[in-house]
Amino acid sequence: MAGTVNPDLQAERDRISFEQEALTNAIDGTPEKTEKRRKYANLALNDPDFDMTSYNFLSRSEKYGAAVEKTVKMIKKIGKLGITDPTDLYIYRSHIFPNESTSFTLHADMFIPTLMGQASPKQQSKWLPKALTLQIIGTYAQTELGHGTFIRGLETTATYDEKTEEFVIHSPTRTSLKWWPGNLGKSTNHAIVMAQLIVKGQNYGPHPFIVQIRSLENHMPQPGVTLGDIGPKFGYDANDNGFMQFDHVRIPRENMLMKHSRVEPDGTYIKAKNSKLTYGTMVFVRSVLIRDVAALSLAQCATIAIRYSCVRRQSEIKPGAGEPKVMDYRAQQAKLFPQLATAYAFLFVAQEMENIYFSVNSEIDRGEIDRLPELHGLSSALKAFTTDWAVVGMEICRRSCGGHGFSHCSGIPKIYVNALPGVTYEGENTVMYLQAARYLVKCVNMAKRGDQLPGSVAFLNKKPAPKSSITEDVNMVDLVEAYRARAYYLVHMASFELDREIKNGMASYDAWNECAVALVMAAKAYGHYVVVEAFAKKLETLTNNQVPASVIGVLTLLGKLYALHGILENSGDFMSENYLSKQQKSFIYNGFLYALKSLRPDAVGLVDAFEFPDKVLDSVLGRYDGRVYENMLEWAMKDELNKTQVHESYFKHIRPFVKQASKL
Amino acid sequence: MAGTVNPDLQAERDRISFEQEALTNAIDGTPEKTEKRRKYANLALNDPDFDMTSYNFLSRSEKYGAAVEKTVKMIKKIGKLGITDPTDLYIYRSHIFPNESTSFTLHADMFIPTLMGQASPKQQSKWLPKALTLQIIGTYAQTELGHGTFIRGLETTATYDEKTEEFVIHSPTRTSLKWWPGNLGKSTNHAIVMAQLIVKGQNYGPHPFIVQIRSLENHMPQPGVTLGDIGPKFGYDANDNGFMQFDHVRIPRENMLMKHSRVEPDGTYIKAKNSKLTYGTMVFVRSVLIRDVAALSLAQCATIAIRYSCVRRQSEIKPGAGEPKVMDYRAQQAKLFPQLATAYAFLFVAQEMENIYFSVNSEIDRGEIDRLPELHGLSSALKAFTTDWAVVGMEICRRSCGGHGFSHCSGIPKIYVNALPGVTYEGENTVMYLQAARYLVKCVNMAKRGDQLPGSVAFLNKKPAPKSSITEDVNMVDLVEAYRARAYYLVHMASFELDREIKNGMASYDAWNECAVALVMAAKAYGHYVVVEAFAKKLETLTNNQVPASVIGVLTLLGKLYALHGILENSGDFMSENYLSKQQKSFIYNGFLYALKSLRPDAVGLVDAFEFPDKVLDSVLGRYDGRVYENMLEWAMKDELNKTQVHESYFKHIRPFVKQASKL
Repeated sequence: MAGTVNPDLQAERDRISFEQEALTNAIDGTPEKTEKRRKYANLALNDPDFDMTSYNFLSRSEKYGAAVEKTVKMIKKIGKLGITDPTDLYIYRSHIFPNESTSFTLHADMFIPTLMGQASPKQQSKWLPKALTLQIIGTYAQTELGHGTFIRGLETTATYDEKTEEFVIHSPTRTSLKWWPGNLGKSTNHAIVMAQLIVKGQNYGPHPFIVQIRSLENHMPQPGVTLGDIGPKFGYDANDNGFMQFDHVRIPRENMLMKHSRVEPDGTYIKAKNSKLTYGTMVFVRSVLIRDVAALSLAQCATIAIRYSCVRRQSEIKPGAGEPKVMDYRAQQAKLFPQLATAYAFLFVAQEMENIYFSVNSEIDRGEIDRLPELHGLSSALKAFTTDWAVVGMEICRRSCGGHGFSHCSGIPKIYVNALPGVTYEGENTVMYLQAARYLVKCVNMAKRGDQLPGSVAFLNKKPAPKSSITEDVNMVDLVEAYRARAYYLVHMASFELDREIKNGMASYDAWNECAVALVMAAKAYGHYVVVEAFAKKLETLTNNQVPASVIGVLTLLGKLYALHGILENSGDFMSENYLSKQQKSFIYNGFLYALKSLRPDAVGLVDAFEFPDKVLDSVLGRYDGRVYENMLEWAMKDELNKTQVHESYFKHIRPFVKQASKL
Repeated sequence: MAGTVNPDLQAERDRISFEQEALTNAIDGTPEKTEKRRKYANLALNDPDFDMTSYNFLSRSEKYGAAVEKTVKMIKKIGKLGITDPTDLYIYRSHIFPNESTSFTLHADMFIPTLMGQASPKQQSKWLPKALTLQIIGTYAQTELGHGTFIRGLETTATYDEKTEEFVIHSPTRTSLKWWPGNLGKSTNHAIVMAQLIVKGQNYGPHPFIVQIRSLENHMPQPGVTLGDIGPKFGYDANDNGFMQFDHVRIPRENMLMKHSRVEPDGTYIKAKNSKLTYGTMVFVRSVLIRDVAALSLAQCATIAIRYSCVRRQSEIKPGAGEPKVMDYRAQQAKLFPQLATAYAFLFVAQEMENIYFSVNSEIDRGEIDRLPELHGLSSALKAFTTDWAVVGMEICRRSCGGHGFSHCSGIPKIYVNALPGVTYEGENTVMYLQAARYLVKCVNMAKRGDQLPGSVAFLNKKPAPKSSITEDVNMVDLVEAYRARAYYLVHMASFELDREIKNGMASYDAWNECAVALVMAAKAYGHYVVVEAFAKKLETLTNNQVPASVIGVLTLLGKLYALHGILENSGDFMSENYLSKQQKSFIYNGFLYALKSLRPDAVGLVDAFEFPDKVLDSVLGRYDGRVYENMLEWAMKDELNKTQVHESYFKHIRPFVKQASKL
């Protein structure tokens, strides 16, 4: 991050009002975590072996090849450096593959964890050593051409043949082709395949099977296996998401992962004891998603847009006074600061989710599974809510960069398209909202019966005050209370609608579909409330931990801005039942403007505190040194169209045509 | 569009309730326009010479080359076919380059029109014949690295040298580099360059100059001209948006376009009489933008998502009843039908804008320029409002396709990224809103003085009723009135805020910046009102023209849905001042659900009526025949990663590594 800084950006840094290191520690969690992040980030960033060309100027095949090369190089380095802790590995990897996937991501993140979680001890001892040393490289093949979030709908079959003690893996239809698994198209040689288990004509539902898909000698597809790449996508160009078709491929009985359910040699099926135990991993994956895909991607885009807005000068405020920084326009602040505040809010709720996960996890280890339904409802609502809004916010950041935001030199398109799948994977967002709503409606009924509800749904036990206590001097307590009231109101409304339809004689499943709009609104309001409350809790924790007042001050402003912006955007909800008066609405609006103005001097400090290295942002507009214009031309010159002065198509098409035209 | 149709999609078409041809005529404007569109579309679509490979699987340089080849071929065809009418040309071209630009788009759309509008008769007789026969090919170079919407900020200079009677075109700074002009990087040999005119040390502001930039012999850059491609963008891969730097390039005095302002040989500057006259073109370009970039792009995405939602089956509504069409989920309807309604709404407002433009244009021809300010305010607000929402709607359509929406096989990413620049070009949207707001605030003051305001702003003359008259049976008249009331209220609020700040002693330019949030909200509400009212007017016109009742019926539902959805999304605005009661809000909500349910049977008919050919959608998911799954594999196999079974990177990187691992 060395070099002379653009004076316009330096002036911003010279007037930051808070202790930046303390804020960075709050972002990371603790000073120790900051130190750790810096250590493993620097190991990656300072390694000249990873100083590779940006993918921007490569063809798809070249991008894929570059990713494979970098992946193999990285794995060797990890071995040499002896990095083994998952968090350290994660930090290291994400600085070598920023906003990207490695060619073996599914091996590390799904294949090995699934072996650990679902293979029997005997199976683990056979497969894990090979997987851990990469003698075999695997992926996880669940999604099919015709089937995504609804796992029961999968069509691939694994039919048990008692005679040979084998499973026959087969793709009976076109829609049963495996489609989308990462690293499947070209990179991996094994897969854990989810398939309908059929024994003696009976279907026991989807189960995991380990299948060799390519030769270990020459990488050719195994007999009966047809596979390849699914073609170009909106992002992840360097990754080979794949398709796979099975034509009666036989695997030994031992290749069904049998930690939970089992098939005996004679075909006897033994069912798993408690399927809820696998929920834990899902919840953890979602908390990572909230942090990485929602919070950090949005934080990166906000970093780029805010730094650039302090370098870019345009138009005029005061006639004749010269072009001001774009950041000085109130309209630009109104676009960008809420995105910055949202990034912080999502980061803090992800930290909270992780804490809840770890505490619930140790309960599970003790056999207590009471909080699993809440954890499932909460993680569903938050995953959908945060990824939905992060994606919207990233696009706002992109267009805040004006025309240059459309160029890949802004870096935002890449961050955006890499975050985008977050709205569909690990459960499509509307399905997620509805799952959360199902839990919330259950809670309403439990509360009616007098049951005490846990943690994040306890608000359904107590009717909120009929009027908001928000005053001119808006504070976080009243804001949290307002979100709680809105969530209470919308959850009860959805529940009421549902009951009404059923009372009117509708079947409960039809009523559920009929009320989907209200149910989704309820789940969104619940997620929003949890996020606002997590921000307030974080402020409390930081205050208790003696974090400097300057940091608490600026974060309180951000927290308020997040909450105020959400009320302005959804004011109808808050004004329903006259909860918020006309005067209170004007307090909200004035508070919002005040927060914009107050945050302005610290805008650059608040994005610098994330400490995204230039190599991670991969953005000319968002460079730490603000030397934007000096570097755009150099960047553009790398394009293959600039390798020659005159493109071959001139000689082939334009010249003959123009010469003919001149003769006319 | 032949072939066996997927039975799920055929079933949808078998139950369409309205006369589709009449709806298509309403979309096109008249039956004659439908006929014309079909004629020129078919000329393009049925020409085997244009049956080219999709760009999806090409490198950037290959895409550029393919576009050049197609452009030249198209121009020859146009000559052969003798197509000369601008509308016919437009239809023909947009079916050969769907959601794309040609390599000479700027020549046709900016270079020639600017010559016609700003060159003197003598200049026209010199340049136009060459331009029209493509002996010279030009672009329009205005935007610079450091300067976009604010034209006065341009830095390129054209300094007059009386001795030689030449202008010296120069790029004095890095930020003065021309940046973004389409077709500049590789394709064109002339440019109209906007530069600060400097005569005898005095700066007269930006003026247009015609400059040769490449040799007509070998296409090499002219001496003193450095130019190239600006590098990869989020879209328009096949186009060479370019940069250009001038090092004291001399052009004859006659190369300044002198229809309006002039520089005499001795350096005398003669100012243009009325600069407002060029507003007309700008307004026309914006009306095209509203139709093409906002309405039709959104309509295309809605077509893809709605057809696919009738083919895709997933999960279950009634347990055990099999997987329903995704379109049968109320939540999916709530996502997609508002986008469909928005596409229709934007289409109708674009038609209205075009009508206004033509009527005002003939006024201008008669020297009447009274309505220009309204036209400018209206077109600014509508351009920003429609492109903003269309882009949001397209992303909703994309994610409504689940995971497959992320693949380029959905076609949506391409339509999206091609529409995206619409939010910044022809004026960045926030700047547009603020320009509209400036006019609206002026209107409030005129109304206070008792002036009668024209057309779309006449609503500011009359205070709306204090309470909405919406009843359980919501009708368009009451809905239009509600939007009118909201716009009235928000425009007055912004005006009030502005006055208050000025009264409190703030300078008017600072007050303007201070109130930007309220001003933008006011302009949005104005645009929204105009769109809803245009829908109502269109319904009236169609009724007066004896369009079948079935078509009026389904369009009325769509119009209501558009208006109802907008109220639900912004209910706080409508509930302010207690304009909308709690009960009326529930009428709105119930009306919205009723419209979703009622539109369901006609969903496919409503998108089919647009008649987007498969070649235009370039989407496997949105195929007219609904044969989605059958074609996805074939599509994927075209990827360069599927040209070999084993990618070269396996031999280079994976195999050596795995072999080494096996030895451990």
